[in-house]
Amino acid sequence: MTVACKRVNDNLIEALRGIVGDRLSTAVAVRDQHGRDETYHTPHPPDVVVFPDTTDEISRIVTLCAQREVAVIPFGTGTSLEGHIAALQGGVCIDLNRMNGVIRVNAEDMDVVVQAGVTRKQLNEHLRDTGLFFPVDPGADASLGGMAATRASGTNTVRYGTMRENVLALTVVLADGRVIQTSRRARKSAAGYDLTRLFVGSEGTLGVITEVTLRLYGIPEAISAAICTFPDLESAVDTAIRTIQTGVPVARIELLDEVQMEAINKYSNLAYPVQPTLLFEFHGNNAGVVEQAETVEAIAAEFGAAAFQWETKTEDRNRLWQARHDAYYACLALRPGCKGFSTDVCVPISRLAECINETRLDINETGLVAPIVGHVGDGNFHVIVLMDFDDAAEVARAKAFNERLVARALAMDGTCTGEHGVGHGKIEFLTAEHGDAISVMRALKMALDPFNIMNPGKIVSL
Amino acid sequence: MTVACKRVNDNLIEALRGIVGDRLSTAVAVRDQHGRDETYHTPHPPDVVVFPDTTDEISRIVTLCAQREVAVIPFGTGTSLEGHIAALQGGVCIDLNRMNGVIRVNAEDMDVVVQAGVTRKQLNEHLRDTGLFFPVDPGADASLGGMAATRASGTNTVRYGTMRENVLALTVVLADGRVIQTSRRARKSAAGYDLTRLFVGSEGTLGVITEVTLRLYGIPEAISAAICTFPDLESAVDTAIRTIQTGVPVARIELLDEVQMEAINKYSNLAYPVQPTLLFEFHGNNAGVVEQAETVEAIAAEFGAAAFQWETKTEDRNRLWQARHDAYYACLALRPGCKGFSTDVCVPISRLAECINETRLDINETGLVAPIVGHVGDGNFHVIVLMDFDDAAEVARAKAFNERLVARALAMDGTCTGEHGVGHGKIEFLTAEHGDAISVMRALKMALDPFNIMNPGKIVSL
Repeated sequence: MTVACKRVNDNLIEALRGIVGDRLSTAVAVRDQHGRDETYHTPHPPDVVVFPDTTDEISRIVTLCAQREVAVIPFGTGTSLEGHIAALQGGVCIDLNRMNGVIRVNAEDMDVVVQAGVTRKQLNEHLRDTGLFFPVDPGADASLGGMAATRASGTNTVRYGTMRENVLALTVVLADGRVIQTSRRARKSAAGYDLTRLFVGSEGTLGVITEVTLRLYGIPEAISAAICTFPDLESAVDTAIRTIQTGVPVARIELLDEVQMEAINKYSNLAYPVQPTLLFEFHGNNAGVVEQAETVEAIAAEFGAAAFQWETKTEDRNRLWQARHDAYYACLALRPGCKGFSTDVCVPISRLAECINETRLDINETGLVAPIVGHVGDGNFHVIVLMDFDDAAEVARAKAFNERLVARALAMDGTCTGEHGVGHGKIEFLTAEHGDAISVMRALKMALDPFNIMNPGKIVSL
Repeated sequence: MTVACKRVNDNLIEALRGIVGDRLSTAVAVRDQHGRDETYHTPHPPDVVVFPDTTDEISRIVTLCAQREVAVIPFGTGTSLEGHIAALQGGVCIDLNRMNGVIRVNAEDMDVVVQAGVTRKQLNEHLRDTGLFFPVDPGADASLGGMAATRASGTNTVRYGTMRENVLALTVVLADGRVIQTSRRARKSAAGYDLTRLFVGSEGTLGVITEVTLRLYGIPEAISAAICTFPDLESAVDTAIRTIQTGVPVARIELLDEVQMEAINKYSNLAYPVQPTLLFEFHGNNAGVVEQAETVEAIAAEFGAAAFQWETKTEDRNRLWQARHDAYYACLALRPGCKGFSTDVCVPISRLAECINETRLDINETGLVAPIVGHVGDGNFHVIVLMDFDDAAEVARAKAFNERLVARALAMDGTCTGEHGVGHGKIEFLTAEHGDAISVMRALKMALDPFNIMNPGKIVSL
């Protein structure tokens, strides 16, 4: 079954103007910007972009679209990687950037309520004087609504969890325009189905997230970061695995292979050794951080690592993590004119070394330029395949490589996507991953969005 | 709309025998035992009880029931508190006790796959030599399938989370008999809707949980428990709040008021001071546990507490927690012949003192016998109202008290149930708590169980 949406017409645009006034655009440049993500996916611009200020405005916009069976695509910062924001059937793009207010910091409860357009850096800036911070960090300065919608995670998930663990409640505009609150601020509840977790990771396909209540954490007394190089990839991965299995509560443990290190050095003007590398961050009190670091340094030494190189100053630490976050752009710069294609498998940690080793051999055999970078504490790693999109044979080779990689991860009880999500770029893998459970996802989608207007063509195709 | 189930007839019983042979009973005593929980709720026995051995048998049983529109009620240990297992429309009770095998311990990944009938104590016994344990502890030695189905939590949730955080994946028999796996063992995934969290807490209303994959934790190097008495309830609650807000990672922090302490002393033959009391447990390395305890003892002293009384030996610690877990039975013994009615609100911790104080005043005004016990680190507390069920005026007074308590918690952004769940005992509060979100829950139920055969009359009434 395909449920096709209708296109936006002048009459709808007039009605939308009645809600948002001038905060609406049909300009080609604006539409293009909202249909394009940072990847190789073909852009699909929406028919119109609106910039609402309130949940109520969004409710009225969605109600209009529902009456006319027009697609609705929520847009945060456009930093998703699997075509999440592509307007595959045209429609109305709801840009949430103007909804960037921190509604209420509940410092005593260590939580915060924000409008969905607030970005993670903006939130942490706002929290600066409270002694609290929000940890989830996918690299990009994404909007918190978008991070909730894609179940984002990132470098310090190994310690603080993903958006799944850190969203307490959501305000959501449903496909018929009604507004719900998925939960209350109590830290736990057994009061019915877990609607919060249903909308976290639903990628705009079940409703528009307009407000987010998040857990906060106390800024640790001590933070230290270290960089550690290894003779080969295997010993770096084994060090990460042993660290996790030993129960050291590392805040970050990131793997970069030698190709990635070279790219980072060039891009960020650094001079780290061009060898497989782990980046660590430790959070705790002073004694605890020292103890954690000593334990991990001893593990690394067992696997033949060089001594830790410490980044103790805040600015050095920030430079290190900025370089890590720029890994994707650094890769693109390795091969000018190419496009990047980032894989995203995640496996149980006991299988991680095997999965990375086999993948590395596979890369070598295919002759692709493809650095590896990973949140190895979670069993999650990315291969950033650099492709010349004009070379059909190379594109085919890269896609076949990714298919083998996903099959390898699934055979190890892993997932095709640890954190990037499905969008329309990974739909084809979901059946292999979920089997009959896909039919349950489809039933949920049909129950909450019977006319298939909410970000159609993502996660499940109706 | 009411969707009524059909009753079990001889023909269905014959067909069930074709699946489970002699592992089936229609004896009154067996049916009675399966329709009765540990509370004041009126028993509703099922028409027949089956004792399957495999997921496949359950799939075939549910398929039969679906064809005949007969109710299916999953049964673990019958320790739920809100009439969860009441066969309100008769039907087939599926007792999962024979499915008590630990399928696979993945020590390197710190997870385990169990059949749903394995109890938490049985699991921890099985794990004894691995250095790992499963922390979630609701008091009762409940089945892990039942704990997943009710989103159970308990005394050490403040440190380790609820079943929501600790279930990695489920095998579920759907309402039409199909079997799905909700997720894989990878620690995180962004591959579509979070079906695991949808079924955790669904109380058997969306499917039968037959296998559970759980997170495990390393047994801490050091564990110590302490008991601390306070001059009044307020100072005990304030100590708990300050402890949480200071970020001390306590493993347990339990409040018992003086009525509860007296009950425990009598029931468990102990001699603790009859005063408002906090019980603590600290997990960590040796230095960490000492540091945590010193911090908390200093906080308690500020609020006028007596010195900590330590329970360092394992057997003393076990006796302490057993006494805590027996709190409910100890209460019942306070007033022989009465029945217990346990409230379960949970509020943001900043509102906890206010909520408990107002509730205590309310108890005093109503003249009820009603000890208070609470998982105060989570903002969750229980009032165990002891009622003479033959005294209609007292029952009415108790129910009115609970209604006021729920309204008070909701006004503080709390929930009517932190951990006991909805069953049919709390359905009436859900609309006040969730508003229009209830319609989303109803839509999910209708999508996954259109004939309303899965534990009908619980969470949402169709």
